[in-house]
Amino acid sequence: MTPDDIRAAAGRLHGHAVRTPLLTSPLLDEAAGRRVFVKAECLQRTGSFKYRGARNAIAALDETERSRGVLAYSSGNHGQGIACAAREFGVPASIVMPADVARTKLDNCRAYGAEVVTYDRATDSREALGARLAEEQGLTLIRPFDNGDVIAGQGTVGLELAEQAAALGVAPNADVLVCCGGGGLTAGIALALAEAAPDATVRPVEPEGFDDVARSLARGKVEPNSGEATSICDAILTPSPGVLTFPIMKDHCGPGITVSDEDALRAVALAWRHLKIVVEPGGAVSLAAALLGDDDRDVVAIASGGNVDAEVFARALDML
Amino acid sequence: MTPDDIRAAAGRLHGHAVRTPLLTSPLLDEAAGRRVFVKAECLQRTGSFKYRGARNAIAALDETERSRGVLAYSSGNHGQGIACAAREFGVPASIVMPADVARTKLDNCRAYGAEVVTYDRATDSREALGARLAEEQGLTLIRPFDNGDVIAGQGTVGLELAEQAAALGVAPNADVLVCCGGGGLTAGIALALAEAAPDATVRPVEPEGFDDVARSLARGKVEPNSGEATSICDAILTPSPGVLTFPIMKDHCGPGITVSDEDALRAVALAWRHLKIVVEPGGAVSLAAALLGDDDRDVVAIASGGNVDAEVFARALDML
Repeated sequence: MTPDDIRAAAGRLHGHAVRTPLLTSPLLDEAAGRRVFVKAECLQRTGSFKYRGARNAIAALDETERSRGVLAYSSGNHGQGIACAAREFGVPASIVMPADVARTKLDNCRAYGAEVVTYDRATDSREALGARLAEEQGLTLIRPFDNGDVIAGQGTVGLELAEQAAALGVAPNADVLVCCGGGGLTAGIALALAEAAPDATVRPVEPEGFDDVARSLARGKVEPNSGEATSICDAILTPSPGVLTFPIMKDHCGPGITVSDEDALRAVALAWRHLKIVVEPGGAVSLAAALLGDDDRDVVAIASGGNVDAEVFARALDML
Repeated sequence: MTPDDIRAAAGRLHGHAVRTPLLTSPLLDEAAGRRVFVKAECLQRTGSFKYRGARNAIAALDETERSRGVLAYSSGNHGQGIACAAREFGVPASIVMPADVARTKLDNCRAYGAEVVTYDRATDSREALGARLAEEQGLTLIRPFDNGDVIAGQGTVGLELAEQAAALGVAPNADVLVCCGGGGLTAGIALALAEAAPDATVRPVEPEGFDDVARSLARGKVEPNSGEATSICDAILTPSPGVLTFPIMKDHCGPGITVSDEDALRAVALAWRHLKIVVEPGGAVSLAAALLGDDDRDVVAIASGGNVDAEVFARALDML
């Protein structure tokens, strides 16, 4: 993958993806003790950055593949990104999700026109089910992060950020903190900024107990999570860095950062109060890290939205 | 006032005010039964569109006036807009507010560096206090809507909207629904669109019991509110249309629309769920009207943020 792939993705997304604003608040700066710039990817179509990668991946398919349709395993943001982008292209989409998934997620995918195929977590394998669907119907599987077109689509966040940061006078040596699950967004942004803002340091941010990327970067080789932890940051709980994303992050990222669930919820509340945006805990870990950092250099946080549970949100507001 | 004043304001605000996005959501469209485009002014610096007018008004002062400082009566969004813009120009700002105002509003004005002067609602007159401060310190009073530079600043929302709506393919004959208190935002947008989007209809939206603008437009002359009603939409509860704003609205606006507090709260909740933005009830009446309308033409709603009380917000989320 090269920065050219990301520029090509930006061309494909132009006029479809939202150019999300880089937001600031004097009161948030005061809370952080430094200037904080928040790239509000929660304002992206479907509520999360995942739409970018999903649309770019479907745009890259040939006519035959498109006419057969696409398939995603995802109960969350990637599934909705695929469902929405597929409808825009008139491409059939099947989303495989566990039968016990939150009703809203399922409803949203159906509202975007996707066929939802459920399975029983206890007895079925989503991989086996997906493989059968793919074979029977000729569907193309689009993975949530280990897909070059998806990574390139997420990387368009980095291209926009470089332009916006220059316009707002962000220090060239700023840290760019990215909410990180499998690393598609982090790798895409790191690749984009390696060329467009080479003095910036891209750093993945993860929840406690799910710091596989931070540990893998520190050791220089993939170290999966133990699988025993739990976290409220459900959007970014992945077992291990991706096969495609890890080498890119290893080449281009600074050290990872880990934050607690409480820090993530507090960031959700401060984004509500000072920036007037709705982020989910997993999409707020980057802002949480920006608020915790102890130096006074400029910092950029990529924040994302998706499906926030109203009760979880109310818990966050209670912390104010 | 002419559209030239608004273009001049846009020049002054360039690089300072956020060019707020025009957001859409397929799921919101489904809820409304038509395409809804939301201009997210809650993402403006300080959380509301008021920053635009405040900054333009301070920019228009001469050096002597600026060195003496500015004064605003406002416990809310205009006061914070003035405080923030004044600090950016290095201009002293005094904000006159009742002693029993919500703590956050007072804290925010102080955090922006303004001097807050409180008075007792029961025994003091804010006008008398303001007049004394203005005379003693030579401060320039900046009114929240009856000020040509303020109206021109708010009108920049209309210039941005015209460009964004054209890029997104919004129907030229769309209704543009504007949350309306004294009418500064409504008049500014109406004046901008009269030239930039002449087939659109700008319509003020007010809470039940505070429909002075709707009634005044219907009768062709100013009809104040009775003063007996209450509403949760605290940001837009004004006694009467402005002296400067009413003639502009009379020339350029379609009929007003009135919505209930419950409709406004539901719009707050749907903006949270589908657009990932935080609007206050007074800033959400426009979206409420967009959701209630019974035709299927495209509709634009200008939504604003400001200071939402966490408990009020939680009440809105409970409606989902």
